[in-house]
Amino acid sequence: MSERETEGERIDLRSDTVTMPSDRMRAAAADAPVGDNVYGEDPSVNDLEATAAERLGTDAALYVPSGTMANQTAARVHTERGQEAIVEAESHVVRYENAGFAQHGGLQTRPIDAGDGAVPSAAQVADAFVADDLHRPGTGLLCLENTHNAKGGLVAAPDAIEAAAEAAHERGVPVHLDGARLANAAVAADEPLAAFTTHVDSVSLCLSKGLGAPIGTVLAGSEAFVERARGVRKLLGGGMRQAGLIAAPARIALTENVERLADDHANATRLAAGLDDLGGLRAATPETNIVLVDTTAAAVDAETFVERCADVGVLGGAMDAETVRFCTHLGIERADVEAALTRIAAVV
Amino acid sequence: MSERETEGERIDLRSDTVTMPSDRMRAAAADAPVGDNVYGEDPSVNDLEATAAERLGTDAALYVPSGTMANQTAARVHTERGQEAIVEAESHVVRYENAGFAQHGGLQTRPIDAGDGAVPSAAQVADAFVADDLHRPGTGLLCLENTHNAKGGLVAAPDAIEAAAEAAHERGVPVHLDGARLANAAVAADEPLAAFTTHVDSVSLCLSKGLGAPIGTVLAGSEAFVERARGVRKLLGGGMRQAGLIAAPARIALTENVERLADDHANATRLAAGLDDLGGLRAATPETNIVLVDTTAAAVDAETFVERCADVGVLGGAMDAETVRFCTHLGIERADVEAALTRIAAVV
Amino acid sequence: MSERETEGERIDLRSDTVTMPSDRMRAAAADAPVGDNVYGEDPSVNDLEATAAERLGTDAALYVPSGTMANQTAARVHTERGQEAIVEAESHVVRYENAGFAQHGGLQTRPIDAGDGAVPSAAQVADAFVADDLHRPGTGLLCLENTHNAKGGLVAAPDAIEAAAEAAHERGVPVHLDGARLANAAVAADEPLAAFTTHVDSVSLCLSKGLGAPIGTVLAGSEAFVERARGVRKLLGGGMRQAGLIAAPARIALTENVERLADDHANATRLAAGLDDLGGLRAATPETNIVLVDTTAAAVDAETFVERCADVGVLGGAMDAETVRFCTHLGIERADVEAALTRIAAVV
Amino acid sequence: MSERETEGERIDLRSDTVTMPSDRMRAAAADAPVGDNVYGEDPSVNDLEATAAERLGTDAALYVPSGTMANQTAARVHTERGQEAIVEAESHVVRYENAGFAQHGGLQTRPIDAGDGAVPSAAQVADAFVADDLHRPGTGLLCLENTHNAKGGLVAAPDAIEAAAEAAHERGVPVHLDGARLANAAVAADEPLAAFTTHVDSVSLCLSKGLGAPIGTVLAGSEAFVERARGVRKLLGGGMRQAGLIAAPARIALTENVERLADDHANATRLAAGLDDLGGLRAATPETNIVLVDTTAAAVDAETFVERCADVGVLGGAMDAETVRFCTHLGIERADVEAALTRIAAVV
Repeated sequence: MSERETEGERIDLRSDTVTMPSDRMRAAAADAPVGDNVYGEDPSVNDLEATAAERLGTDAALYVPSGTMANQTAARVHTERGQEAIVEAESHVVRYENAGFAQHGGLQTRPIDAGDGAVPSAAQVADAFVADDLHRPGTGLLCLENTHNAKGGLVAAPDAIEAAAEAAHERGVPVHLDGARLANAAVAADEPLAAFTTHVDSVSLCLSKGLGAPIGTVLAGSEAFVERARGVRKLLGGGMRQAGLIAAPARIALTENVERLADDHANATRLAAGLDDLGGLRAATPETNIVLVDTTAAAVDAETFVERCADVGVLGGAMDAETVRFCTHLGIERADVEAALTRIAAVV
Repeated sequence: MSERETEGERIDLRSDTVTMPSDRMRAAAADAPVGDNVYGEDPSVNDLEATAAERLGTDAALYVPSGTMANQTAARVHTERGQEAIVEAESHVVRYENAGFAQHGGLQTRPIDAGDGAVPSAAQVADAFVADDLHRPGTGLLCLENTHNAKGGLVAAPDAIEAAAEAAHERGVPVHLDGARLANAAVAADEPLAAFTTHVDSVSLCLSKGLGAPIGTVLAGSEAFVERARGVRKLLGGGMRQAGLIAAPARIALTENVERLADDHANATRLAAGLDDLGGLRAATPETNIVLVDTTAAAVDAETFVERCADVGVLGGAMDAETVRFCTHLGIERADVEAALTRIAAVV
Repeated sequence: MSERETEGERIDLRSDTVTMPSDRMRAAAADAPVGDNVYGEDPSVNDLEATAAERLGTDAALYVPSGTMANQTAARVHTERGQEAIVEAESHVVRYENAGFAQHGGLQTRPIDAGDGAVPSAAQVADAFVADDLHRPGTGLLCLENTHNAKGGLVAAPDAIEAAAEAAHERGVPVHLDGARLANAAVAADEPLAAFTTHVDSVSLCLSKGLGAPIGTVLAGSEAFVERARGVRKLLGGGMRQAGLIAAPARIALTENVERLADDHANATRLAAGLDDLGGLRAATPETNIVLVDTTAAAVDAETFVERCADVGVLGGAMDAETVRFCTHLGIERADVEAALTRIAAVV
Repeated sequence: MSERETEGERIDLRSDTVTMPSDRMRAAAADAPVGDNVYGEDPSVNDLEATAAERLGTDAALYVPSGTMANQTAARVHTERGQEAIVEAESHVVRYENAGFAQHGGLQTRPIDAGDGAVPSAAQVADAFVADDLHRPGTGLLCLENTHNAKGGLVAAPDAIEAAAEAAHERGVPVHLDGARLANAAVAADEPLAAFTTHVDSVSLCLSKGLGAPIGTVLAGSEAFVERARGVRKLLGGGMRQAGLIAAPARIALTENVERLADDHANATRLAAGLDDLGGLRAATPETNIVLVDTTAAAVDAETFVERCADVGVLGGAMDAETVRFCTHLGIERADVEAALTRIAAVV
């Protein structure tokens, strides 16, 4: 029985961003060789970037403070003002980045509903494509997200990525993959990270979500892409100095915490099944670590349900009026899931 | 038999923007009292603006060089950077304004498919509304279009406008009505222009489309709105000096050419029926002056069909891969429609 | 004795933008062949653009509604976001265009005080130049103004333009010439318009200031430049339809009203001398049509002096706390100047 | 004799950004209590922000990844698009932030040369102020920098800050103080940090320069200011998760490393005197930790001189064609200064 359960401590399923750095990560921070990263002289950052590029199958990578900065930087590098970006309708760049594509990039987002899929199909991309003319500068970017957060951690397999990307490339449109949770996709699909990046022009991978690093995302692509991204990172205020202190633990996250995501996925599956069994709530079996719960049949709105759960020490978040999200992560053990189910059962 | 037909002159159905100023408009230009409009001293402009405000049922109006400038100015006045604008998915501001909402306003457009309607329903507006939070500044504008160009001049009745607008207002969101062809809607619905503006915060009306003015659009709203719009017009480069020369004919367009739009609508109905009768082509009965022709069943793509029509002197435009648009307007008489049908019949 | 003087009508010296179109211009408007200019089919606009290109010595030209739109369009075409634009410290783009370089272009203006000159020297340009590095995208534009409005219509001779432009070109920086009053410079220097444009990449010429057209500016440059400018004009809302109605009178302004600017210059010289003779006021001999009056020695601030002049029907404008501007133009005859002097003498 | 000298190790005087975190800082990183800072739950970050607010004399503070993000965020919070920002001509926001005021804020910078001072005088601010009118939105920000980097770490005393700020406030203009090196100013002036912030609306303080933290800057102001800044930080991609890992060492930098800046200042004074004594080079006595060396009299350009110094293991940077900058910091002891002087003497 976990300490949390006995002591009634809160079980935090709000997001995998709440993950705590391990002792080994903390030790790595304490021991990290560092230098001025803006001058490119931080060995721990350089090491992280090289490792990330290798894992992601790209020529180069850049360490940035957040996933938002990674996506915004990529969009800015790939596009011209006034172009359109094809994006999945409920993707992170649309929902959670303060209209950054419009604000930073002058881009018009063209949201496509991928339905049951995490990424638009080739046909959808083809259909959404707009050629340059007097009235609009045309499509300048296809931005994919994998796993798809708002769709409950849905996985796009490498061939789905390839199909969408090729439809873009045939039309001269570059592709960015928001891989905030790409490691979850890789584990779920039993593929290496690089299997998902073969056909994209840039990819981000968040190290501070399920992988457990305290801070940061890597943005990867060609040497030329990363060189230009470095300039945009400066513009956005992402130039950090002795960043090795956080890059060293982030490297541990990348090299040691990928495989263990399978545990999070198993825990999420158990959580979903348990919730679905309670009656009233509906939770489909998740592909990765995100459980979406439909509260409609329980005759309770999402905000209220979240509050009731919080009252018994189980934290989640409302995605919309009748959908609640729970995330599993390295801070959650199987016993915590069982405890959460027990507590929630008491309040439904 | 019209001169055009006899002489094989081209019959220009590409757009109602091609309308030629009448002799009376030209005379008005020649005789217009003028002054420096940037100083607010052009009597003909002031007269046009007062007349437009009165017809549109607003406190004030501003004369600008184009419909694009009117819409972009309105969006800029109503919103803050980073907000979302709810727009119909195929509306003019999305398709034909160079991503101006993003470029000028830093706005993220949220396209809503209104289906058979010209404007989103109240439920759609409510559903698309986003509240301000850390991740996004929330919804800042509802932008409607009436008639809806890309849907074939579809009319939104005053109560449809009201429903959508009230759904926005209940959430503190201002409403702009892109009324490029609002006069067509008014005639089709047999309502005064002002019937459509009661519930919106600003409205534009294009004078150089079906109304036949050589140049310009009026943007109308409250005194405070127009005062701020004046500053944005300057920023966008829309400050014209002795603009009375074009405002005087534009005033004739506004005061004398509204009712005659009924002829354009009748001509469009005849054109659609004639095309539909040809076999192969499908053209629904239009509500106003825009005929959309589906070329699918004719086994010809839109571009090719447009070229074939052009070969016999009938000009239209491809809207997408299998849709062709024809517009009737004051330069097209019934005989021209018949002639166009005869010519097109020969090439189908 | 002019009618104005006898009748005590106002003598409007606020700006040469107040010029009224002549009867010939009005007749040209009435008779102009027109078409849809957004489709490139307005013969009068095409004629004006061809004539302007020929006079300005460029390959092509584009008719836009205002000088502000011309300058903003040029900057946008020539630059990338985040670059610097070298500009004279008191030039029009800095003082009167709503921070458009920043707002439309994302450009940082680098104001250079050209001292007694209208344009920066080659040494100043070289000194202001910034190379691209991680911290800034470098210099992307040199923008000159001739004549220089805020410096009292100061003329830059062709060799001054050449020197500054060459300093920019040697560093890979394109040059735009804001020639709102370039015709005044040409007449003052007794050179053709084209003599000033040999070394610049784009030039604007306002037709609605001293040249007397009701509306509009031409923006000229290479074919490729104008093609891109056409897209930016659309973005800014400058696409006007049957614009021949104003392009035809504008063409008369361009072809017939250049030489007569010499009269305006002579009138300005007389006005300056007369004001300087009054005692208290100081007015240097102008090079063109703009008289700057220093009110310091008259112990009156500029605003107050402008008001007193207005009380006796002479209109001018305050440039700053102790400088008043008077402009001569085609609506001002010598007798008006004398009348103005008589009236002002009474209030000093 | 320092180890560096004996072993010929490089003496890095390029910038105080190269400072290495101490063992105590590393230990603090390893032991820091952390949480999800985007949710406001990181105790170490909250502690740092509270401490910073207290030291800076403000109500609240926000931890951001870089000085650039702090300045850009402040500008964005204080201003509206199209306003002007009065800035010292050679200040950091002008020289080193990728035209961020224009790109992020749509702001036109109005550079003022403060001459011998670090900040513009009240008279200069008054003179640079522009009121809102049709042609421009007016002045929206006064941005000061203390110490002034490009002027060799020049200090603005509290009364100079006050004078400039009051001139702005009298005109309704808010004031941001870029205090990247405000701690150096405080030590040099023997005043607490809060003495410089009484009259400003926001202030940034860099913790990763002379104070030696690995990463980060605090941006401080009123509660309302910080609340809005939090949203802009998210937009810019500055939302870091378990940021306590770097906030804990940053707090040590803030609480323990201020007073020791006096050593850096003494070392800089010794370095300047030594360089000046070499003949050929001119180096004025610095007020803080930045030595500017004029290479003109040595008949060598700055780039060449920097290269020669680098050849003997002394690193500096060229500020312009004939100015080289050396910074002292906590990684430089007196013996390093003497060693640097000996080495440089050999190459002059």
